[in-house]
Amino acid sequence: MHHNLCFIGFGNVARSLVRLLERKREALKSTYDITYSVTGIATGRHGFAVNPDGIDVGQALEKVESGKSIAPLSTFQVADSLAVIQHSQANIMFENSPVNYETGQPAIDHVRAALNLGMHSITANKGTVVHAYRELTALAESKGKKFRFESTVLGGSPVFSTFREAMPLAELISFKGIINATTNLILSRMEDGEAFDDAVKYCQSIGIAETDPSGDVDGWDAAIKVSALATVLMNTPLKPHEVERKGIREITAEMVKQAKVEKKRWKLVASAEREGERIKAKVSPELVDTSSPLYGMMGSSSGLTFSTDVLPNYSVIVSEREGMKGGPEETAYGLFADFIGVVRG
Amino acid sequence: MHHNLCFIGFGNVARSLVRLLERKREALKSTYDITYSVTGIATGRHGFAVNPDGIDVGQALEKVESGKSIAPLSTFQVADSLAVIQHSQANIMFENSPVNYETGQPAIDHVRAALNLGMHSITANKGTVVHAYRELTALAESKGKKFRFESTVLGGSPVFSTFREAMPLAELISFKGIINATTNLILSRMEDGEAFDDAVKYCQSIGIAETDPSGDVDGWDAAIKVSALATVLMNTPLKPHEVERKGIREITAEMVKQAKVEKKRWKLVASAEREGERIKAKVSPELVDTSSPLYGMMGSSSGLTFSTDVLPNYSVIVSEREGMKGGPEETAYGLFADFIGVVRG
Repeated sequence: MHHNLCFIGFGNVARSLVRLLERKREALKSTYDITYSVTGIATGRHGFAVNPDGIDVGQALEKVESGKSIAPLSTFQVADSLAVIQHSQANIMFENSPVNYETGQPAIDHVRAALNLGMHSITANKGTVVHAYRELTALAESKGKKFRFESTVLGGSPVFSTFREAMPLAELISFKGIINATTNLILSRMEDGEAFDDAVKYCQSIGIAETDPSGDVDGWDAAIKVSALATVLMNTPLKPHEVERKGIREITAEMVKQAKVEKKRWKLVASAEREGERIKAKVSPELVDTSSPLYGMMGSSSGLTFSTDVLPNYSVIVSEREGMKGGPEETAYGLFADFIGVVRG
Repeated sequence: MHHNLCFIGFGNVARSLVRLLERKREALKSTYDITYSVTGIATGRHGFAVNPDGIDVGQALEKVESGKSIAPLSTFQVADSLAVIQHSQANIMFENSPVNYETGQPAIDHVRAALNLGMHSITANKGTVVHAYRELTALAESKGKKFRFESTVLGGSPVFSTFREAMPLAELISFKGIINATTNLILSRMEDGEAFDDAVKYCQSIGIAETDPSGDVDGWDAAIKVSALATVLMNTPLKPHEVERKGIREITAEMVKQAKVEKKRWKLVASAEREGERIKAKVSPELVDTSSPLYGMMGSSSGLTFSTDVLPNYSVIVSEREGMKGGPEETAYGLFADFIGVVRG
């Protein structure tokens, strides 16, 4: 079956997804009989394009990456993301606009609009899950469509889909792990003797920390991911400010050095567990020793251990690849897997 | 929908599955509208029973566990496993007869018979996968049924289903890990100062090693699991004898002690990687240090790291639960998950 795709947000992740789709074009056709066109693109700084007959994606990538506008590729006059959704005649929308942690907007509006137009909606945007999971899931169901978000945690590796498809009726009791790669890389570099500030600068230089690193360093990103995981997998809404949260700013070079002497390591540990009707959730630095599965997770690795009523200790770990820093390609794969998932039904 | 289940083999794993099904009866009904009856049971030493109206499973469990025959529960005269399959009027068959590593029989015949009668066939028996994966999968497809075997590796935790459902079009390039829990527990106990023979005896005493421990100790069990993984996930048939194999008999107390001094550990490592059209596979003791994800896997834990074209380093680890030894309950969950998977379609 043929699918029209629209992309709201066309940054590194979305462009990696376009490249992955192109690379897998033949396999999609031969394995699942899936063909596709890209019929709408909304960018932050390079304009908008709609063409229900299919946009030349090679040209779109080239234009954005050389700093040009994609407007000349449009057969429609469109001036904002909602207009792209509306006129794209897409049946799948990929939402990858920048995350707003406090409101989830405008991503939530994009997903709402797409679902209302009968499109499956797939996003890497944590804000949509944390602020509107129940509403968007109910809306999707009422339209016979899907709202999917695999790429919001563990960088595109399967977690939500594993629970949904491969662990039916498993009750999640608690989970614990490292879910912010940036702070883990900072702590790893501090163990090698680098100062905190220099480690932050390094993370900024390779593009995994923002100019203002507080989202990572103060534990907000981890708290938001804990909220998303608890909300979906424990079926209990949990907001980031309900997570007891402490970042890594108080971890000094001296503390890291002392831990190393004792064959221990500081890790920013995220956890959640059910306590009656409530979820007790926490993000905080912890000293772990070699008996902990977290001890060996270095650099930009991340991972979670899940305790369920049927499998007591199931862990997923996403390790740093030699010379690679858990880049947009992996996040793009989560969106790609969601795409195949929703169209297979 | 209502499903009739038959059980070929009724040991610890099958009985754990029956208990899990009973515990989840309401959730199966409310979540998936699945109801079930057990209409056939074949045991190794406690007889056979068929009742198309449903066998009282409480009585069946009680009889087997108190050493009695289940024959009085039968409304049919049946004298072997194939007769149970034939007369049970089941639409799902669970195959859990003892594994024959060299031929996969009689399990393969059971699966073949069940598929030919239009039953989905679910097994924890590695022999069926290693010796007849392609044949049984093709037969299942020709009948519009499924042949499933999640419980054959990593004790019931999702691996095959993760690749099938949650990692579409991921090409598996290589994998590496610890997949024999018994040898890992032996090596862990040796690190604590126990002699090899005593560690083996301990494993026998808790029921995770056989009277003849050579299947585990000489690496055969690991080699068979490598074969199953490569055959299915790399789509390339690989027999156990094609796996370069070395067990842990040469690992002396002195070697383990010396490794400990150097903050290293001996692990029985299983691996496979694609080399052109071939799979190069190996089971062998390796010395790992704290930078290895295998270092922290102690006791009866096991785990695998998968390298794919889309996710370069995705690991699944199944850890020992405090006071538990990766028992039949977890293996039973893999069969349970396969059951829900096949009936959801």
